[in-house]
Amino acid sequence: MTPLPLDEIASAVEARLPFAETLFETLAVETRDGDGVTRPAWSPADGRAASMVAEASRTLGLEIESDRAGNIYATLPGQDRNAPALLTGSHLDSVPKGGNYDGYAGVVAGLTALAAYRDLGITPHCDIRTVGLRGEESVWYGIAYIGSRLAVGSLDVSEIDRLRRADTNRTLADHMAEAGVDVAALREAPAPYISPENTKAFLELHIEQGPVLVDRNIPVSIPTVIRGNARFPFARCYGEYAHSAAVPRELRRDAALAVVELVGELDRLWHAYEAKGEPDTVFTVGQLYTDAAQHAMTKVPGECAFSLNFGGTTEAFLDAVRDKSVALAEEIGQRRNVDFELGECVGSNPTPLDPALRRHLGVTAERLSIAMHEMATVGHDASIFARAGIPSAMVLVRNQHGSHNAAEAMEMADFGLGTQILAAALLDLA
Amino acid sequence: MTPLPLDEIASAVEARLPFAETLFETLAVETRDGDGVTRPAWSPADGRAASMVAEASRTLGLEIESDRAGNIYATLPGQDRNAPALLTGSHLDSVPKGGNYDGYAGVVAGLTALAAYRDLGITPHCDIRTVGLRGEESVWYGIAYIGSRLAVGSLDVSEIDRLRRADTNRTLADHMAEAGVDVAALREAPAPYISPENTKAFLELHIEQGPVLVDRNIPVSIPTVIRGNARFPFARCYGEYAHSAAVPRELRRDAALAVVELVGELDRLWHAYEAKGEPDTVFTVGQLYTDAAQHAMTKVPGECAFSLNFGGTTEAFLDAVRDKSVALAEEIGQRRNVDFELGECVGSNPTPLDPALRRHLGVTAERLSIAMHEMATVGHDASIFARAGIPSAMVLVRNQHGSHNAAEAMEMADFGLGTQILAAALLDLA
Repeated sequence: MTPLPLDEIASAVEARLPFAETLFETLAVETRDGDGVTRPAWSPADGRAASMVAEASRTLGLEIESDRAGNIYATLPGQDRNAPALLTGSHLDSVPKGGNYDGYAGVVAGLTALAAYRDLGITPHCDIRTVGLRGEESVWYGIAYIGSRLAVGSLDVSEIDRLRRADTNRTLADHMAEAGVDVAALREAPAPYISPENTKAFLELHIEQGPVLVDRNIPVSIPTVIRGNARFPFARCYGEYAHSAAVPRELRRDAALAVVELVGELDRLWHAYEAKGEPDTVFTVGQLYTDAAQHAMTKVPGECAFSLNFGGTTEAFLDAVRDKSVALAEEIGQRRNVDFELGECVGSNPTPLDPALRRHLGVTAERLSIAMHEMATVGHDASIFARAGIPSAMVLVRNQHGSHNAAEAMEMADFGLGTQILAAALLDLA
Repeated sequence: MTPLPLDEIASAVEARLPFAETLFETLAVETRDGDGVTRPAWSPADGRAASMVAEASRTLGLEIESDRAGNIYATLPGQDRNAPALLTGSHLDSVPKGGNYDGYAGVVAGLTALAAYRDLGITPHCDIRTVGLRGEESVWYGIAYIGSRLAVGSLDVSEIDRLRRADTNRTLADHMAEAGVDVAALREAPAPYISPENTKAFLELHIEQGPVLVDRNIPVSIPTVIRGNARFPFARCYGEYAHSAAVPRELRRDAALAVVELVGELDRLWHAYEAKGEPDTVFTVGQLYTDAAQHAMTKVPGECAFSLNFGGTTEAFLDAVRDKSVALAEEIGQRRNVDFELGECVGSNPTPLDPALRRHLGVTAERLSIAMHEMATVGHDASIFARAGIPSAMVLVRNQHGSHNAAEAMEMADFGLGTQILAAALLDLA
């Protein structure tokens, strides 16, 4: 098959933007919650999203299939049905009162690419599949990427009986059954539905969840690496409540000033790493609070809770800040006569995205004359496929107002540019 | 009159400790609330305390009188009824579920001294009076020292219609009327009941509210000065909530790290003042919190609330830290792209205690062979009498577990030593 000129692919994608827009608008209306949308994982709302994928696929004449976890796949059959397939897509669920694009944009992009191929009468060499994943957002069951981890077999199936949805306190298995998943079949734990043997690459389009592309006025990014993190979600410092005026410094056990010193030192450490060139690091103390039931302006705080959350692209950085947090807490605790309990440290290693796929996406963007920026990105389903041994890469699309909030505002023109890159690259790879 | 030997005074005070102990125990039982006591200002509970003062005074043959605000006075008449009197005593009210000694110990000490004089058959040159004050604790009506301020005329009487009790939301005037105060007479605002013309000195015994005397193993202190303070009770920093991983540092508006930097700098400033010899300073950030309704480990905090509370014995120190707080908030706010709103700055100037009275108390302690420590103290009614032009000084008594809590634990032996000093010094001054 002679490769189609890129401009034909681009035009076919642009011609399908009204189709994409209808998919966005319909689901926004049907899963609306206040100004935003709420699509819990394995609920009627992300189930509705899955149905929309199926309905759109039917009109396009695509094959429709679900894996045992309830992830839905639309497949454009290739000439060689036995050749490993190309996979694209993202997740269907959202955070509570979130935006309509986080996740769903990648599913719509995949369907739009397949629609464009149909319009052009293309039959690729191998199957090209678009997946709508469930359970990416950690807000529902406490952990992220449940759908993709079940698809590649990297989550112990027994977890479905242990994990409970934060707002209902019912098990994941219970919600899955209600969403139509055959839980007994899932528990049989067959071979992974998606594996390096049947899938040769995964490409995920996702909105950027930060302001970098807006700030730089660039529509898309081909990210280099999915950042790892080192987190102490439930750290605490214990001192002793005391009269704010009657107790001199040497007899104080001030939990708040001890935490302030620790956090201040870690903030300076972050600066120092940046200054010496460590790329794409972040540090966030999202929660920091004295006890509302006991604190007062006139009391030395006897307790202070906080979280530490570092992100980085090298294991060396994450190891260093984790170790330094522990060492500083020990040193400051002794000197200030308070007790730090940093609690469990959780996290993940950085996941590099596939260099060959990244180069391919970059070259495709260049040939399409689309400006592109390289940077690290945050956790996505792509990291799960990458860790399962499937070469993976991503396309991030510029998005106003961040994500995980109702104000998410991807522009369809930018979505079109990202989908052009995705569609052209997939076809080349096929 | 030939001065009595000190050991006779001391013995007479010691002999009256069972009388004092009964006063403590009876009121503890009658105003018990859980493990502690609750005596709201102008309530049946501090009214019961006032009745006990009256009953004890009757058994001692003392004159009993109330001022228009409901403070109660027990007077041992002197030889010259027209000579300015000596005043001792403290407050009758307590904080909710507080200890039995904060305030009440000074009233019982005054009555015990008068009882000892009676036992020794002494008629002093001038009247010696013990006052039981109301409304010292700010927890009830939002401001402190209401009883003493009304006694000396330094509180506008119209405040009684404006101030409301925090837990009942009823006006002070309403509670006063219920407690038997003739509110109409009080509103006439006659000449102050206590003035430099009719009162030549005020000596207040009070428990220490901190751990210094326990730590140094010394039973009493003659404090040098009542600390002033500079406070920002309701400071806030506003930034912008954002994804903790997707937003690089230069685009963040992190309210928590900005507050951490400000507080850390002020903590270091406090250290620096201490290091260069500024005496008796304190710094407390009693409240420090991200917004529980919005914060999360994975969100850059868009808001952080905090309080700043400095105490010191020099106006220069208080002025400096107040100015530095404002300047640092401005500088850090600009650099970190956040908005500090420090809010109203409230406070009070340091109030030196009368040097001649302090020397007199110190010499008395020395002659009684009672170990004594000089230090600054926290706010007390004595500051109100001092500011009204009445020479004032204090005796602090060692007390375990701080105050404003049910675990307050003054030992009667220490109370006896403090009361010996008080009784001997008053008699000398008369």
